[in-house]
Amino acid sequence: MKKYNFNAGPSMLPREVIENTAKQILDFNGIGLSLMEISHRSKDFQPVIDESVALIKELLDVPSGYSVIFLGGGASLEFMQIPANFLIKKAGYLNTGTWAKKALKEAKLFGEVVEVASSAGDGYMKLPHNFDIPKDLDYLHITSNNTIYGTEYRKDLDSPVPLIGDMSSDIMSRPVDVSKYTCIYAGAQKNMAMAGVTVLIVKDDMLGKAPRELPTMVDYRTHVEKGSMFNTPPVVPIYSVLETMRWVKAHGGVKEMERRADERARILYDEIDRNKLFRGTVATEDRSVMNICFVMNDEYKELEKPFFDFATERGMVGIKGHRSVGGFRASCYNAQTLEGVNALVQAMKDFEAQH
Amino acid sequence: MKKYNFNAGPSMLPREVIENTAKQILDFNGIGLSLMEISHRSKDFQPVIDESVALIKELLDVPSGYSVIFLGGGASLEFMQIPANFLIKKAGYLNTGTWAKKALKEAKLFGEVVEVASSAGDGYMKLPHNFDIPKDLDYLHITSNNTIYGTEYRKDLDSPVPLIGDMSSDIMSRPVDVSKYTCIYAGAQKNMAMAGVTVLIVKDDMLGKAPRELPTMVDYRTHVEKGSMFNTPPVVPIYSVLETMRWVKAHGGVKEMERRADERARILYDEIDRNKLFRGTVATEDRSVMNICFVMNDEYKELEKPFFDFATERGMVGIKGHRSVGGFRASCYNAQTLEGVNALVQAMKDFEAQH
Repeated sequence: MKKYNFNAGPSMLPREVIENTAKQILDFNGIGLSLMEISHRSKDFQPVIDESVALIKELLDVPSGYSVIFLGGGASLEFMQIPANFLIKKAGYLNTGTWAKKALKEAKLFGEVVEVASSAGDGYMKLPHNFDIPKDLDYLHITSNNTIYGTEYRKDLDSPVPLIGDMSSDIMSRPVDVSKYTCIYAGAQKNMAMAGVTVLIVKDDMLGKAPRELPTMVDYRTHVEKGSMFNTPPVVPIYSVLETMRWVKAHGGVKEMERRADERARILYDEIDRNKLFRGTVATEDRSVMNICFVMNDEYKELEKPFFDFATERGMVGIKGHRSVGGFRASCYNAQTLEGVNALVQAMKDFEAQH
Repeated sequence: MKKYNFNAGPSMLPREVIENTAKQILDFNGIGLSLMEISHRSKDFQPVIDESVALIKELLDVPSGYSVIFLGGGASLEFMQIPANFLIKKAGYLNTGTWAKKALKEAKLFGEVVEVASSAGDGYMKLPHNFDIPKDLDYLHITSNNTIYGTEYRKDLDSPVPLIGDMSSDIMSRPVDVSKYTCIYAGAQKNMAMAGVTVLIVKDDMLGKAPRELPTMVDYRTHVEKGSMFNTPPVVPIYSVLETMRWVKAHGGVKEMERRADERARILYDEIDRNKLFRGTVATEDRSVMNICFVMNDEYKELEKPFFDFATERGMVGIKGHRSVGGFRASCYNAQTLEGVNALVQAMKDFEAQH
């Protein structure tokens, strides 16, 4: 049976990314060695890094003065590396959900941290808007898309201080004004790659200002200066970045990714709003186009498990809401298809007709 | 042409590990999804972690009271995490080469560090022996195999204090008395996996004693408590650990890996010692069986480039010595074959016959 992958991450990737990666694992560029066993310092791998960096810069229109680096450890590791590198006196954080809160917590180890705005009081079901941003912050940290709750800042914020964006779950899904940011980082296992690599876009002249001695690997300068080759980088995950970036470019770039995301989200939210069994969980204006969260309406609560089973029988994978929230979550990253979304919508319609 | 892979890391892996990984990337366990796009929290992936941990424990005969965890970032990141977690007052380090020195450097950020012994004065071409180990150390850090210089402690040291071993380049190549260690860690891209995952074996009751507040991701307890699932782990690299550990077990375990390593090394060092063109660089008793380093004898210096070309034409890959040392290095990790070693030896013989 055909599967429709709505996993929140690691998540659906374009089929050609998967097939090309498997092919290169069997024989990398026809050299008679596997992608798994080539040296990261070989003449065969350097072009992978170079083209990946070039494509990321091209696709997101990264201005000069920024570096793109690849790290291991996941975005969670960046929660401590970001303040270690950029917190001089005071940093601001938006508390918009689980991951935002985790980022904020780690920053407190490095200096003064201000919670500039929070939607915790609303159960994170909406986003803060129209808040004041203190002008003396070193940076304002935002989680642009909140994977668990399904809220998303779909535009770059206006801010009197530089932004730092955790874009783990919506990078490459829309054009971004990179010049507003000191750093954009993303655990790449949603829109960019298999799990195992973190992508950072770092403004070079903001590095080296923090008043603390950093371990070599924690200091972003190490990786900028060595072109992500200070130590052995995650070779195969980086290769999957390259393949995915090639796919994004071939499919029209981030402008087209945005159009597709909007279209998918419209179809799915329209059905959620129309169908008597379901309701969206998030304030309409803050709805994520990446993670579409919904629950059964109160009078149909007992149908949650039956609908999950019904959809699973039709090939839906990963539609269970995050364990801290419940209900359903259909993650629609760049690789998600209209076919997948329509299959889910049809399942919702058919299930409704039965009840 | 058949290639013989002598890369120092990432390096040769068993062909069945490569083929099985490629197959699972195309369709994981026949579920209709790629290994690249399954959730790390799915019922499909948990058994991968569980079996990998179980096999590592079985193969290295890990005593109870130890945990096995998987991290990203590489062994270089552990150079700071090790002292962050285990340095209470004073740590000892053996300075046996480039990586050992890097580990020592990072530890100094966290407390008092003693260089217990060093072979820097010998250009790292031998290993320190018969040194005194202060009894008041929290731990003694050793780099069991020095990838760049080709020296190796082939037995666990006797020590009055617990050991911490960077075994990045010789883990799984011999039985180890794990009970002597507080922690064994390894960037897994030599004997255990593709690049992108670090394996740690940690003694549970040594955690949480260091007198400092640790960032969540730096604290090993985070990963022990969450079974390497605090955040998204490197799914595909971990899968390649599983495949490689299955291969090691099927091929007789670490005892047999040791026998094979000794056999390969004997054949290659015998030729180096016999052949008039070459000489080994390392003191005989300290020679690594993983990284076999040699240079042209002084009177044949000008033949270095010609021999490199000669061997390359016969399919040898990765035999250039590390850029900081020069000469040649044939890395013979677990997956290296007698066929590969014999091909290199034959090239050395044939080249000698021409000169």
